[in-house]
Amino acid sequence: MGERRIIKTLEKQLDRMPNMPVEFGDDVSAYDLGNDQLAVLKTDMLVGATDVPKGMTLRQAARKAVVMNISDFAAKGVKPLALLTSLGLPRGLSKKDIEQIGEGLNAGARQYGTYIIGGDTGEASDLIISVLVFGMIQKSNIMLRSGARPGDIVAVTGPFGKTAAGLSILCKEKQKSRSKWRILVKSVLMPEARLRVGLALSKKRVVTASIDSSDGLAWSLHEIARASRVGFVVRKLPTAKEAREFAEENKLDPTELTLYGGEEYELVLAIKPRLWQEAKRAAARVNCTLIPIGRATAERQVVLNIEGRTSRISPKGYEHFKTS
Amino acid sequence: MGERRIIKTLEKQLDRMPNMPVEFGDDVSAYDLGNDQLAVLKTDMLVGATDVPKGMTLRQAARKAVVMNISDFAAKGVKPLALLTSLGLPRGLSKKDIEQIGEGLNAGARQYGTYIIGGDTGEASDLIISVLVFGMIQKSNIMLRSGARPGDIVAVTGPFGKTAAGLSILCKEKQKSRSKWRILVKSVLMPEARLRVGLALSKKRVVTASIDSSDGLAWSLHEIARASRVGFVVRKLPTAKEAREFAEENKLDPTELTLYGGEEYELVLAIKPRLWQEAKRAAARVNCTLIPIGRATAERQVVLNIEGRTSRISPKGYEHFKTS
Repeated sequence: MGERRIIKTLEKQLDRMPNMPVEFGDDVSAYDLGNDQLAVLKTDMLVGATDVPKGMTLRQAARKAVVMNISDFAAKGVKPLALLTSLGLPRGLSKKDIEQIGEGLNAGARQYGTYIIGGDTGEASDLIISVLVFGMIQKSNIMLRSGARPGDIVAVTGPFGKTAAGLSILCKEKQKSRSKWRILVKSVLMPEARLRVGLALSKKRVVTASIDSSDGLAWSLHEIARASRVGFVVRKLPTAKEAREFAEENKLDPTELTLYGGEEYELVLAIKPRLWQEAKRAAARVNCTLIPIGRATAERQVVLNIEGRTSRISPKGYEHFKTS
Repeated sequence: MGERRIIKTLEKQLDRMPNMPVEFGDDVSAYDLGNDQLAVLKTDMLVGATDVPKGMTLRQAARKAVVMNISDFAAKGVKPLALLTSLGLPRGLSKKDIEQIGEGLNAGARQYGTYIIGGDTGEASDLIISVLVFGMIQKSNIMLRSGARPGDIVAVTGPFGKTAAGLSILCKEKQKSRSKWRILVKSVLMPEARLRVGLALSKKRVVTASIDSSDGLAWSLHEIARASRVGFVVRKLPTAKEAREFAEENKLDPTELTLYGGEEYELVLAIKPRLWQEAKRAAARVNCTLIPIGRATAERQVVLNIEGRTSRISPKGYEHFKTS
């Protein structure tokens, strides 16, 4: 069973909370406190064997566990107020190892203006770093996956393809290419969540749908399409310069790197055309350039249309259990 | 390294949130929202290899993962409003297995009046069920570990020893004794959180310190003693009738079963003598009989004093990593 079928099977067993403000399957969950206030919660688990590539230190792994959770808050435009961690630690970690994990957790929390206020530690056969984020937001400001409408501009907060390239470098363990392609490797080892721009955009209420791209650009587009019941035509691929150079040198397809990578923490956004300029300005104020890549369509397909040639973008993405 | 040293090592790496309303190491964590309101958070992880005894089904394991988290809310007197789960699942679980896990999670949530509103699933080599609980409480009502004063009555919400006995039965896998000692086995497989009495007591503000006894009665007393800077004299051991019978038949020490078991989810409370009657009545209204077992003392020792004989109660308890 793949991850998504497992999730469906689980959800079928669950009674649904009445008036749930955020659907199952969105980047975060929320509890309606009344008075237009939502308590927002997110938990995501980093697992050593599947989420920690070769060459990543324990400090980096712990920081990444925080960043990947903060990224979901960024996508919803919610400020993280506090973090908890739940750790499963293999036997035999040294004091130094534990310190590295603590350092990484703290570095991630502090970078995004928050703190770790508690948690739990137990023994597990694999390294497990589960992070929980808590925050509050006005109900009318949260950016869900479900609000995109035909005609909306699709934009991203940065270029894509670096992490897919970086991962392939780390997997091959060539020290030489690690130093040559430092920026690609860094995108994997030290990911950044787009929190400032997420918060700036939610405050302005200019976004109709938003998701983080941790499962890849293609998957993210399909997720917004599904939740919003629209399609997308992508007319410009936001390939990172370094990813393009790496692809050329290694005879890889830059389109593949751009669309089907993962562990990339940009935001994928839908924005009403009349609010586009305002959105761009709000993003620019926090040093982020929104990159328009296409439009939402009534036809429920996700396609690439470049120089008149149309091709389908597959709903492929990083999925546990099915990949290895 | 034992679990508690690991936690200390981790905490040393963490910047402390200013004005943290609940200390590291209490049963829950909290974020101060102002206006006397705390957002309360808890996450605890059930790990297949260490927390799921032989004979426990996946449905029971999943339910237990919820109950052990709700129990911490019970101890603090906080109503759980919503749950998230973060699952690490080994490859090869069947659809039926996943359904059982979903069922157990839902059963635990619904039994305590709440819902699972989201979560995350990934692959792990061992079964990991991490549950996160969210709730809100008036700051002045939360029952911490740290408020016990000399002279306070120590009380528990039920008898002890059943789970230690039940675990030993499950480990020996004797089907015959499983049916004879059904009530002991059930205490392990279908634990109950003392939520109703916890909520009733926090509303009345009659408790000076509280903890759940998931690490055993002895450990719980030592934890309150440490956090409150007091000691305890225990004059009456709250041994369950069935645990006493089981101990007799199997030549075990009932005191050991009572003090040093674990996975028991009663509350251990300190209560001002002048509020004792009110506390008893509040508990009785939700069908719970508070059992007084001793007093808090200025002398910082935890001792058993029965029929004039005094002995020390050791700070032993269930601890991951050190036990096996």
